[in-house]
Amino acid sequence: MKEKVKPKTLPGFMELLPNEQILFNKMKEIIQKTYEKYGFLPLDTPIIEDANVLLAKAGGETEKQIYRFEKGENDLALRFDLTVPLAKYVTEYYDKLSFPFKRYQIGKVYRGEKPQRGRYREFYQCDVDIIGDGKLSIINDAEIPAIIYHTFQNLGFDDFTICINNRKLLNGIFLSMQLEKESTEILRVIDKIDKIGVEEVKHELQKQIDIEKVETMMKFIAIDGNNAQKIQALEELNISNEVFQEGLEELKQLLKFITIFGVPENYFQIDLTIARGLDYYTGTVYETFLNSYRELGSVCSGGRYDNLAEYYTDRKMPGVGISIGLSRLFYQLMEHKIISADNQSISDVLIVSMTNHYEMCADIARKLRDEDFNVQINIEEQKLGKKLKYADHLNVKYVIIIGEDEVKNNVVTLKDMVTGEQKTAPFEEAIKLIKGIDE
Amino acid sequence: MKEKVKPKTLPGFMELLPNEQILFNKMKEIIQKTYEKYGFLPLDTPIIEDANVLLAKAGGETEKQIYRFEKGENDLALRFDLTVPLAKYVTEYYDKLSFPFKRYQIGKVYRGEKPQRGRYREFYQCDVDIIGDGKLSIINDAEIPAIIYHTFQNLGFDDFTICINNRKLLNGIFLSMQLEKESTEILRVIDKIDKIGVEEVKHELQKQIDIEKVETMMKFIAIDGNNAQKIQALEELNISNEVFQEGLEELKQLLKFITIFGVPENYFQIDLTIARGLDYYTGTVYETFLNSYRELGSVCSGGRYDNLAEYYTDRKMPGVGISIGLSRLFYQLMEHKIISADNQSISDVLIVSMTNHYEMCADIARKLRDEDFNVQINIEEQKLGKKLKYADHLNVKYVIIIGEDEVKNNVVTLKDMVTGEQKTAPFEEAIKLIKGIDE
Repeated sequence: MKEKVKPKTLPGFMELLPNEQILFNKMKEIIQKTYEKYGFLPLDTPIIEDANVLLAKAGGETEKQIYRFEKGENDLALRFDLTVPLAKYVTEYYDKLSFPFKRYQIGKVYRGEKPQRGRYREFYQCDVDIIGDGKLSIINDAEIPAIIYHTFQNLGFDDFTICINNRKLLNGIFLSMQLEKESTEILRVIDKIDKIGVEEVKHELQKQIDIEKVETMMKFIAIDGNNAQKIQALEELNISNEVFQEGLEELKQLLKFITIFGVPENYFQIDLTIARGLDYYTGTVYETFLNSYRELGSVCSGGRYDNLAEYYTDRKMPGVGISIGLSRLFYQLMEHKIISADNQSISDVLIVSMTNHYEMCADIARKLRDEDFNVQINIEEQKLGKKLKYADHLNVKYVIIIGEDEVKNNVVTLKDMVTGEQKTAPFEEAIKLIKGIDE
Repeated sequence: MKEKVKPKTLPGFMELLPNEQILFNKMKEIIQKTYEKYGFLPLDTPIIEDANVLLAKAGGETEKQIYRFEKGENDLALRFDLTVPLAKYVTEYYDKLSFPFKRYQIGKVYRGEKPQRGRYREFYQCDVDIIGDGKLSIINDAEIPAIIYHTFQNLGFDDFTICINNRKLLNGIFLSMQLEKESTEILRVIDKIDKIGVEEVKHELQKQIDIEKVETMMKFIAIDGNNAQKIQALEELNISNEVFQEGLEELKQLLKFITIFGVPENYFQIDLTIARGLDYYTGTVYETFLNSYRELGSVCSGGRYDNLAEYYTDRKMPGVGISIGLSRLFYQLMEHKIISADNQSISDVLIVSMTNHYEMCADIARKLRDEDFNVQINIEEQKLGKKLKYADHLNVKYVIIIGEDEVKNNVVTLKDMVTGEQKTAPFEEAIKLIKGIDE
């Protein structure tokens, strides 16, 4: 016999206890069903891809984090997001797809980051994207917040805000001030506004650009009020630049249709300070915040991009999409006790046998399953106390106990694990109680 | 701009078109829901594990197929099945689990096999296992065929056979004939009986063991008839060996309870020729065959094992379980045209706009989604013909067309894509048709 190996899960890899896993899976399923309600098609691409295909676009930080290795003569890598595999997919199967191509993908991705609390090396992303062939209507951008709204509603949240911006506004301002080249650096500074405040942003910007341009920038950033007031203020900036006007027009269209798609007014707002994905997004951007837990950061982000697959094809494929980082979100919600897995259960009923006449247990299990209940059976040789503890641990609502007397009299003892009530009755009567049918 | 990279999926990695993926996911969900009906708890272990943990038990062929690589100072490997991660899990979290521990896991596993038709390097396994702490009642072995039965029933199959054997029978015979040492080799020969036939098996065995022992072996293998007749024949072999008698007793118990758990007589049979997993299984073994497609091999296999986690702990944890290799099964069913993805659809209704008044489209989309329909919307600038082709490709049953006239008269045009019928009516009337409500 070899020496025992100490079994351990790698740091940075989420592994849940069963009750946590039940809750996690429920959330995953809710996200999936909501995505499907909006007509997104499922996709499931390989976790391993050819490294050259996967890294066609990557560079810098991403490349360092990648799990890359050789097997035989193949240079392989694990996917680090679901967007690159989507780009690969729509290019590879272009002739077999219909556009606009709407797909969701829920799956694990891999990044060899330094493990820290809530940061995982293997984590779930839940993505939807709408990909156009050549062009894609702005109305699609308005449907996305409805998906976010219904997803988080269905997940049980009722107090969150979907923040919306359009990168063309800022880009247009840059263009009008001939600051295109400095834009990335300026955006990087502006992006810190939540952390360092307005004055510090202003201070940092003045190191690099003329004071009157900083003033225009700050006037833009200072825009406040409700959505209508913000739109008005944007119009009053009187920036004639074409890109700016395009962004403004898109934002107005978006606001109009969001409501028609069913998002209540108090769940979304223009937020001109969000400027996600410095290089990637080109138009609309989204971030979503739980209002009582703003410190969690955005729980669902995304935006519009001009050209999904430019590293694979000359075909222009614009898209708009969002991603929920479910593993991290789950960790945060658990950590802040916003959700709890304490009462999660797969089984509705546990049948325990206190005799070695097991036929009745098996028979009742079958009958309850035929009635569509999830049923577990415990016919091990254990004491009743241990079996009830087992039931407690499984969080089942009902335990059916079969002992000698029950077999003899053809009855069952039904224990309600919530109230502690116990009743001995024929099975037909017990099942009515389980079904919640009053007599 | 970098040169374009040719996007390609690696050979041996399954990647489906959307309609195929819909069907695949439906099958996966049916398997999941059936496993849950039997009270199995969900588990989702990492795909990457510490190589020393994962390979504690492996050797030979398995080790060669493993995806193993280094990242930083870590020696990592991708899981090649779901059983080793289960062994790791129950040992690592022993104190937090209740036994018998029933878990299912549906996930991808990795084996760097030579790619061939229907053999994948990344594939789904759908496993259930019941793990005992020290011991585990044989009744659990009888519940497993009920899970197999309901899973394949729910998947839409009606003509399959669950073959059952108990390895203790053969082992007992070996012991009674003092052939334990030769048993692996003898089993290997016997396992070929379907391929090479009885006579050739006999011939091969005679090379290695005495003729009278071969005769006993062949008498055992020749046992035929219905289940009751087979049990009787086994009894009439008059083998007093304890292991043999234990196996026979277990098999009898199993047969008795299978029926009570709800498996009809014609769906299972004793098959003394199956002897799965030469080293691994120690008692009951299962194989499942689609009767009209026996050439597919077993579509669901498993069995009883004495000691799940012996490489990690001294604690004895017997278990019983099965596995469905879903990727391979899906491939085979598609290849043999036993299933078809032609009519698979996510959306119930597609709304297409033939005008740039999109408000009505968005409004109707919201209303239909509120009524729990899956709805996709196409407001791109495309001709009607292209949009109907799009609807065809999505396999939606209904298309709602909104043009200038519909907007003006506040009606919708509903097209039934199956019958080709088309009707213009107020939305409230159209939704009744979609719901299948006769007026």
